[in-house]
Amino acid sequence: MQLPKAGTELDLGVRSLSRDAIRDFARAYDPLEFHLDESTAKRHMFKDLVASGPHIFNLFYKEVWVPRFGASVLCGLALDNWKFLRPVYPDQPIRCRLVISEVIEHPEKKSRSIRWNFNFEQADGSLVQHLEMLVLHRDS
Amino acid sequence: MQLPKAGTELDLGVRSLSRDAIRDFARAYDPLEFHLDESTAKRHMFKDLVASGPHIFNLFYKEVWVPRFGASVLCGLALDNWKFLRPVYPDQPIRCRLVISEVIEHPEKKSRSIRWNFNFEQADGSLVQHLEMLVLHRDS
Repeated sequence: MQLPKAGTELDLGVRSLSRDAIRDFARAYDPLEFHLDESTAKRHMFKDLVASGPHIFNLFYKEVWVPRFGASVLCGLALDNWKFLRPVYPDQPIRCRLVISEVIEHPEKKSRSIRWNFNFEQADGSLVQHLEMLVLHRDS
Repeated sequence: MQLPKAGTELDLGVRSLSRDAIRDFARAYDPLEFHLDESTAKRHMFKDLVASGPHIFNLFYKEVWVPRFGASVLCGLALDNWKFLRPVYPDQPIRCRLVISEVIEHPEKKSRSIRWNFNFEQADGSLVQHLEMLVLHRDS
């Protein structure tokens, strides 16, 4: 597996979350009423059902990132600066752009730590969510 | 609901994760081999199955925090400084201590933002994991 260098930018494409997917994720991991019940959600801050904060990251992580980079993971080290800037609504297209901001090599341990910046954007390009995932990888 | 003041410390008790729970969570949200397969895990860095990083937080969040404070949530704002310091093994008792480090009141909006520090400790008291969850709450 080719691990990316610092400065690399990767477009992971566009995905969306259905109403059912939003409710299923929330029921399992974030059972707040405004992620589960439409009538509560309509009276709440965002006026419609919105996804649990971590849901859009989890979708791209599980379905795109893990199949591509998961085999080299030794362990996760940190999640930093995860900012929930705008809500994610049902069926809203969200693009994920990755930026590798830091790579620290540990040649004596045949490993490297990589800081993966996940940026999630809505259709007009504005930022919906950002997080930095610091992972220790095995050198291939 | 009584929301806590800055400086408050709360002990959320001790929980553990079974092997089955570790595999179920990983299959759904973090399908790396060393969270799923015991023989892979024994050859991996931690020499046994270990829980996905977010799993222990999610357990306390869903089963203890949400029932107690969830009804006042307007929205999540951030997750900061989530450090995975030590692995969490099957059936290992983990204590969760909450510290409220910051409360910012917005009386004109009848809301307040609260920074909830989650500290997870193993039996000898050393820190396994830390994160800060910044949430906007409705004043009761």
